[in-house]
Amino acid sequence: MIQEIMRETLENARPAVAQGEVASYIPELKKADKNQLGLSIFTMEGERYSVGDTKVRFSIQSISKVISLAVALELCGFETVFDQVGMEPSGDAFNSLVKLEISDSHPSNPMINSGAIAVSGYIEPKIPFDQMLTFTRRLCMDPGIGLDSRVYESEMSHISRNRAIAYLLENKGVLRNDVERTLDFYVKMCSLSVTAESLAGLGLLLANGGVSPETGVRLLKKKTVKVVKTIMLTCGMYDGSGEFAIRVGIPSKSGVGGGILAVADKKMGIGIFGPSLDEKGNSIAGERMLQYLSEKLKLHMFEA
Amino acid sequence: MIQEIMRETLENARPAVAQGEVASYIPELKKADKNQLGLSIFTMEGERYSVGDTKVRFSIQSISKVISLAVALELCGFETVFDQVGMEPSGDAFNSLVKLEISDSHPSNPMINSGAIAVSGYIEPKIPFDQMLTFTRRLCMDPGIGLDSRVYESEMSHISRNRAIAYLLENKGVLRNDVERTLDFYVKMCSLSVTAESLAGLGLLLANGGVSPETGVRLLKKKTVKVVKTIMLTCGMYDGSGEFAIRVGIPSKSGVGGGILAVADKKMGIGIFGPSLDEKGNSIAGERMLQYLSEKLKLHMFEA
Amino acid sequence: MIQEIMRETLENARPAVAQGEVASYIPELKKADKNQLGLSIFTMEGERYSVGDTKVRFSIQSISKVISLAVALELCGFETVFDQVGMEPSGDAFNSLVKLEISDSHPSNPMINSGAIAVSGYIEPKIPFDQMLTFTRRLCMDPGIGLDSRVYESEMSHISRNRAIAYLLENKGVLRNDVERTLDFYVKMCSLSVTAESLAGLGLLLANGGVSPETGVRLLKKKTVKVVKTIMLTCGMYDGSGEFAIRVGIPSKSGVGGGILAVADKKMGIGIFGPSLDEKGNSIAGERMLQYLSEKLKLHMFEA
Amino acid sequence: MIQEIMRETLENARPAVAQGEVASYIPELKKADKNQLGLSIFTMEGERYSVGDTKVRFSIQSISKVISLAVALELCGFETVFDQVGMEPSGDAFNSLVKLEISDSHPSNPMINSGAIAVSGYIEPKIPFDQMLTFTRRLCMDPGIGLDSRVYESEMSHISRNRAIAYLLENKGVLRNDVERTLDFYVKMCSLSVTAESLAGLGLLLANGGVSPETGVRLLKKKTVKVVKTIMLTCGMYDGSGEFAIRVGIPSKSGVGGGILAVADKKMGIGIFGPSLDEKGNSIAGERMLQYLSEKLKLHMFEA
Repeated sequence: MIQEIMRETLENARPAVAQGEVASYIPELKKADKNQLGLSIFTMEGERYSVGDTKVRFSIQSISKVISLAVALELCGFETVFDQVGMEPSGDAFNSLVKLEISDSHPSNPMINSGAIAVSGYIEPKIPFDQMLTFTRRLCMDPGIGLDSRVYESEMSHISRNRAIAYLLENKGVLRNDVERTLDFYVKMCSLSVTAESLAGLGLLLANGGVSPETGVRLLKKKTVKVVKTIMLTCGMYDGSGEFAIRVGIPSKSGVGGGILAVADKKMGIGIFGPSLDEKGNSIAGERMLQYLSEKLKLHMFEA
Repeated sequence: MIQEIMRETLENARPAVAQGEVASYIPELKKADKNQLGLSIFTMEGERYSVGDTKVRFSIQSISKVISLAVALELCGFETVFDQVGMEPSGDAFNSLVKLEISDSHPSNPMINSGAIAVSGYIEPKIPFDQMLTFTRRLCMDPGIGLDSRVYESEMSHISRNRAIAYLLENKGVLRNDVERTLDFYVKMCSLSVTAESLAGLGLLLANGGVSPETGVRLLKKKTVKVVKTIMLTCGMYDGSGEFAIRVGIPSKSGVGGGILAVADKKMGIGIFGPSLDEKGNSIAGERMLQYLSEKLKLHMFEA
Repeated sequence: MIQEIMRETLENARPAVAQGEVASYIPELKKADKNQLGLSIFTMEGERYSVGDTKVRFSIQSISKVISLAVALELCGFETVFDQVGMEPSGDAFNSLVKLEISDSHPSNPMINSGAIAVSGYIEPKIPFDQMLTFTRRLCMDPGIGLDSRVYESEMSHISRNRAIAYLLENKGVLRNDVERTLDFYVKMCSLSVTAESLAGLGLLLANGGVSPETGVRLLKKKTVKVVKTIMLTCGMYDGSGEFAIRVGIPSKSGVGGGILAVADKKMGIGIFGPSLDEKGNSIAGERMLQYLSEKLKLHMFEA
Repeated sequence: MIQEIMRETLENARPAVAQGEVASYIPELKKADKNQLGLSIFTMEGERYSVGDTKVRFSIQSISKVISLAVALELCGFETVFDQVGMEPSGDAFNSLVKLEISDSHPSNPMINSGAIAVSGYIEPKIPFDQMLTFTRRLCMDPGIGLDSRVYESEMSHISRNRAIAYLLENKGVLRNDVERTLDFYVKMCSLSVTAESLAGLGLLLANGGVSPETGVRLLKKKTVKVVKTIMLTCGMYDGSGEFAIRVGIPSKSGVGGGILAVADKKMGIGIFGPSLDEKGNSIAGERMLQYLSEKLKLHMFEA
């Protein structure tokens, strides 16, 4: 039955694809096939459902911010991470420098570029990228995750804005790690290639409070997972996060590669792939699928 | 036992009182006794617990924004309300005009002054203030709620900033109702006098999805309550909402009168009174009490 | 010969008329005939030249800010006027509230609405409007100047934005005079009806350091005139003032009624009428005429 | 007699020294002797007057922006230079990124860091630094001008903010030249060591419309000089330019090394050295000297 609802969800959302566009800020992302669409659900009961293009590899992009934040919380602790990075939605676009410049000496939150670059600065000296990759594979229950070197190179050759952000962070004393090493690490994390299924795997782990439901092994601390889910809820869908929390009510994080990681707490992990984006940078069909699923399966956190 | 935890909670938070200040922007609020502190919990099981100054009347202030939003959703519907008012945290102070001016033609959300004034403009022509008062008494299960005319008059004689906001809203076509009538309605709603118990009553109704647990009568639609709780979570604690969601994880709304309305979903309503405020305008001991309770009673929405 | 250059100037600028639009923010201004164009020059030698529609009455609008500033300097003195109003170009649009809100407690300068409203607040209690009118007639050597009551009423019924600004100024302690009386005074000054010749008259007075060249009577103090000309230069052409200073180099003040007052220091007063405006609110043909004249007659302040 | 007025000017300004501070953003500038004070005047008649520390070498800093702008206008022409850089005072601090980010795709003007970096990007590929140095010596009539390598290195190791600005400019398509080469050129120009006399020499050249009064050789075009003087007037004294134009009325450019270049048009060049700065970054005694001189010698551009 859930498979059927998922198929329904997919078909209901498909027309939205035409209204969006694939990401164009780097050439490599422009190559995505706008019409691909995939939806995976991994439940606490151990069931795995997939419809559509759920095995297609795509660029994780901003969804990696969730992983980096989780790892930073594990390695450095809550107080250290949030000493230089805020916890508030910025109300601005994800790559804005304005808030950073005007009022605060630190990034608004770890889900926008400036915050994620600061977070990368915390962990880069503590954990080599290879180890991050290995850990990401475990978190996502997907040994196939790798670095997409073409995306990585494409990103690195269009890095001006993020480089500007990073040097501004250095100037403000937020980023104390080497700027270029930090950027390299940040871009590598954005260039991981995942599938809708990888995201469902990660979502399930978070839904289960940090314990792998397959192995029973705890991969992340309870508190880490609580913090991460809350920030996904308040800041995960760029400057559309507030509306998404109302309409959908599921902690989610999107990336401009077309992925959405969603966590129906204590129920299921949801992974989505749909590279056609709305003007805020969220998968347009993905958002529609999540709203549909939220209503059908009563997944809104404040469902009565 | 819960009574004991509540007493503990209160005593744990009491030292924070000294670090805050009572609201000073209108003379009438300055008269509050900084040391008062009250905590009420009304549970889904029908129990009512109170410790401290829970029968002291104080000014509801911004907590009335929750009631006005709920009534607007009931009277005008979701689409109308959010046609001219956004759903995003603003990232700015509650009474800022900047966001309103720079990027958007409408207020960021209904929990900041500009949004609440717009909401008042929707309902003022539809429901007389007397009826709002009667309905508020029912929502809070407190027939003692009334208009504090000294607060009302004090507010009205210090209304310049809100008047500026209202005329800017008129200029932008957001406020189409008469400006002065709208302001009068808005200020009257802010001048209602409640107790910590009134807020616990309202909180319980919201925790129960809009149905009065006492009478079994539905006072608010399911969807209204879902929307209201989500907005309280993302926008309810001024520009500290994001941090509060992480640390406490309970949909809450504070007012500069020192009140906090908190909704532990499907569990209990919590009402707080503590007029000593932090620099963001939230009851300083109130926040501490909620964080303590959240940990002790495991009330965080993403508690594992 | 100068008459010939003026005719040339007018014809050279005429094609620009088609690229602009008459002001539309109040209905009364929309009625202006976009094709009208007039240019008057009054020289220190006592010559008066006029070509085109120089006797057509139109609304002075923002050019009245120059007169109000001059009168405020005379009545209250330099230090008082600039205690609550700045001297810096704002870099923003003339009716913006952003700067006022973000960084400063006071308006950037007296040539933007917020600054001129503050200035009106200084003088309204000191000089009745009738007396302002009489003095304006003397400054402009034009006894025909009067209040256009249709413009005045049209303005008053579209006053929301200026009212918002005025109440924000009250809130910030900048405006201490009665808000509604101040606004009324401000709007009346904007609703005076002048001609290109009136503006040339005022320009000549300023070019001559405040002494009427006809009667030899000093109407404004030397220092007042020096201050006024400098502010016209740095802030007179809305957010195009910097470019205008470079390209034209003549202290000027424009109004959305289509007028421009220009002061070729120690040489001549120039009055322009051309109600077709560019997107910054400056007479589009007027600017072109001034640039042409500046080159032909070598009027740039830093002409080598 | 002028020598006497100059001595008077210096002594009148000396007490202000105590109220400021030397620049501290790079260690090398912190070493300046706060009490040094020098004033040089070179007149059109060929007289050269100096009082105080006018032969002390100090870092030219932002005053080099005037030279770079002049050279860019000569090499690329007016339209090219102002295609990507504005002509408006920004109303913000000299090193702000806000305006750049919010409203415009280009820097507000060539006197703030972002604008000057863009200008450096125009000229760096066209003229090697050595040649710039030689030309600067000619403009200032001072063969002793050289690169202060300690300042240069100190700047380069505190370059984060300017690097952020430069990469943001690259991101916006304003800076098309190599970023690191551009920054290097920009910093070298800021690290030239001049004296109050060098600045008086440059000021005299500008006062004389671009022709060396000594040799009669034209070094800069008339139009270049006209543009440069106007921009100095509207944007030369950081975010205090408007007030300075009113109070002093002499096109000037200050640098955080403590220098001020001032141009009393058609009369004299004025060079000032006084490293104690006000909070806007202008030489505090320097400003006072210029105001004093302006009054004594009637140098205000709109002096009646």
